[in-house]
Amino acid sequence: MKDQDSSQIKEMFYPKTIAVIGASPDKKKIGYEIFKNLQKFTGKVYPVNKKEDTILDQKTFDSVLDIDDQIDLVIIAIPVNYVKTALEECGKKNVKGAVIISAGFSEIGKKGLEEEIVQTAKKYSIRLIGPNSAGIANNDTSMNATFIMDSKKGHISFVSQSGALGAAIIYKTVYEGIGFSKFISLGNMADIGFCEAIEFLAADKNTKSIALYMEGVKDGKRFIQVAKSCSKKKPILVLKSGKTRAGSQAVSSHTGSLAGNDSIYDTAFKQAGVIRTETIDSLLDAADVFSQNHMERNNVVILTNAGGPGILAADECEKQGFNVPTLSQSTQNKLKKTLSPYASTRNPVDTTAQAGYKEYLKCIKILQNDNDIDAIAAVIVVPTFIQIGMTEHARGIIDGWNKKKPLVTCFMSGEVALTSKNFLSTNSIPCYPSPERAVKALSALWKFSRWKNEN
Amino acid sequence: MKDQDSSQIKEMFYPKTIAVIGASPDKKKIGYEIFKNLQKFTGKVYPVNKKEDTILDQKTFDSVLDIDDQIDLVIIAIPVNYVKTALEECGKKNVKGAVIISAGFSEIGKKGLEEEIVQTAKKYSIRLIGPNSAGIANNDTSMNATFIMDSKKGHISFVSQSGALGAAIIYKTVYEGIGFSKFISLGNMADIGFCEAIEFLAADKNTKSIALYMEGVKDGKRFIQVAKSCSKKKPILVLKSGKTRAGSQAVSSHTGSLAGNDSIYDTAFKQAGVIRTETIDSLLDAADVFSQNHMERNNVVILTNAGGPGILAADECEKQGFNVPTLSQSTQNKLKKTLSPYASTRNPVDTTAQAGYKEYLKCIKILQNDNDIDAIAAVIVVPTFIQIGMTEHARGIIDGWNKKKPLVTCFMSGEVALTSKNFLSTNSIPCYPSPERAVKALSALWKFSRWKNEN
Repeated sequence: MKDQDSSQIKEMFYPKTIAVIGASPDKKKIGYEIFKNLQKFTGKVYPVNKKEDTILDQKTFDSVLDIDDQIDLVIIAIPVNYVKTALEECGKKNVKGAVIISAGFSEIGKKGLEEEIVQTAKKYSIRLIGPNSAGIANNDTSMNATFIMDSKKGHISFVSQSGALGAAIIYKTVYEGIGFSKFISLGNMADIGFCEAIEFLAADKNTKSIALYMEGVKDGKRFIQVAKSCSKKKPILVLKSGKTRAGSQAVSSHTGSLAGNDSIYDTAFKQAGVIRTETIDSLLDAADVFSQNHMERNNVVILTNAGGPGILAADECEKQGFNVPTLSQSTQNKLKKTLSPYASTRNPVDTTAQAGYKEYLKCIKILQNDNDIDAIAAVIVVPTFIQIGMTEHARGIIDGWNKKKPLVTCFMSGEVALTSKNFLSTNSIPCYPSPERAVKALSALWKFSRWKNEN
Repeated sequence: MKDQDSSQIKEMFYPKTIAVIGASPDKKKIGYEIFKNLQKFTGKVYPVNKKEDTILDQKTFDSVLDIDDQIDLVIIAIPVNYVKTALEECGKKNVKGAVIISAGFSEIGKKGLEEEIVQTAKKYSIRLIGPNSAGIANNDTSMNATFIMDSKKGHISFVSQSGALGAAIIYKTVYEGIGFSKFISLGNMADIGFCEAIEFLAADKNTKSIALYMEGVKDGKRFIQVAKSCSKKKPILVLKSGKTRAGSQAVSSHTGSLAGNDSIYDTAFKQAGVIRTETIDSLLDAADVFSQNHMERNNVVILTNAGGPGILAADECEKQGFNVPTLSQSTQNKLKKTLSPYASTRNPVDTTAQAGYKEYLKCIKILQNDNDIDAIAAVIVVPTFIQIGMTEHARGIIDGWNKKKPLVTCFMSGEVALTSKNFLSTNSIPCYPSPERAVKALSALWKFSRWKNEN
């Protein structure tokens, strides 16, 4: 099945018509959530439910076979024992893609049942996501075929082997203003797994970076090959769990699968240019940085209005293998003309709290034109107590920046920083809540740039 | 001056009367922000300003000498050149504590000017915080003598050498629901420094943990002595910047002071039981965990409703030196009676997404009674799509817990988790946004417990 045309998977993400088998008017059911979430979808959605007449004012169908339209994708959310029959009907209807939300297969030891639906799908050339998936989403077409809330639109595509973690990450990104292009909850990976998902996303023009939550892959060699080929086009970031003995035992109780020897994964990731991250935060932070150009070398300038946070950024830079070079006399002289006499112009450039729109605009222009500098990290504590507008720094940075060298920002923190963050995100400038996280994200960009230069 | 009675510092945090020298009706001025923030203070506040008649409907005074009341604390926010005269007047008025917000002293190289005000203060036995301080706050008496927003009330006291970072951290904690008891922005530390702050906070009954942001200390030996004596009572957490070469050069440009050799700090912290953290997040996360009892040994059970996040918690446990032991057959049997047949009971205990209030109540009771377990980490993805109330897990945990063994929680994530988090925080149960951060915070408790056992 792995050799089938991967355009079939693309069609699952760009269907014109979707049938939800198990759509329900009962607000307590997953079949309600999915059907409700699909109301914004730009194509057609049909509810399938034998027992109900209408769902959200739409006429239901007893079976996909009763729908007088071609069906490009089905979402199946019915009790486990009815899945095979539903798939048979999909096959007869010539449906080519199915996302199976229904659980109760190999994840609770019922491998035979899972094999049966795989065989049924094969018979009709249906590609499967799941079972035990939380669904898929494509923000290009407002298709949220999951039981999770809508994610924000953005450039990251996220592939999760855990449905619950997928859900948790969507809640988090909505809250923090990080945007997704595609979302895939792989579930038990009875058919489509990481390799197929990566192949599809590598070719997807709205995906700038791919973030994976992985517990284990089945075919390691193929994964390396597919991932490496993808890395030549765009970055893959991974959070691989089951890293430790305790974690790998937990993987085994969770899915019955093996986490495998962690050092083997580590080597495979390095070979394939896959950037490994250690936490949920660092996975998303790193994925978000790839709205930026690559880095030529590793010289970073820190631009800040607050001494302490600037120092923390400098510490993190060195920890991540960056240089924080003292700026040339020529650049320092230009900065001095712009800034208060109490500003520091070495690096970190500390503008002092008095600097606003004009100063930030000029500083960004001066720093991006310095050939000794490869990236800018701007670290701002939004002042609430002096005569500087809340978004002045953000606007200065946006207006001054020529988009050539990578730029990451940290706006600290909480509610007072949110307006600036939203403003920056709209302009494709990643913004993080702490200096450490901003610099760490930039280091993913540097790691990937280096890998690309070497491969 | 260091030998004076430290009760004088306590009086600065528990004044009955405060004068704000430089209080202003001009909303663009720091003297306005401070005076406005002090309106909620339970004692009396007097505005001092020669040029104005009233501020926020209160009659102003030309000098502290004109106030017909004893003044326990003054906050000075006037241009640098007037500070000495103002201090002289405070001395004549027999004021014993002054917080100097005014900047323009040693931080911009004017060491002589700073020495003058130190000598003036000495002459009148006034203790000084600052200059170049962002102020001090005490949530016991609703005293916010800073130009920053009000922090939430809680058990952490926070001492910052950087005013801007202090402000940023207050914004952050308000947003994330973390609470402070006292806040001290030390500024240039012309008089009161880390040692005096720690001595005061060690004796303060509403402070359960002390969080420091430090760029450098002046008297290392005394710091070790004071910190060690404090650690025997309550934990000190530190974020020490200037750790790397780049960071230490940045410290030197920031304050003109020396960050010093980092390994010396590291050794000093270890000797004194001070727990060093690496990021702003981990400083606050660790400080927040000390609403809990100490840990006897290092055996942790993970209780979760979501496989993936449970595995990430297990990985982080092992990384932090915890055991994640397989539960005894007897405990597993008890759990099995409570949970669905598809639950996993080894460790992590995965209740599956179907478990709600009743199951969490029972699981917590069973796990806290297991003598092989020393702490519980509960990792929950709040379900939004099944018939389980949003706060069921939180209520089950709160109602089941007997408060004896440490308990940390992670509720993932974003807005859907906030209600649970607030609910848990009100019940003194720390709640973190990711499994990694919950486990890392617990490890600070374990490090401190171990240090206390050995010292």
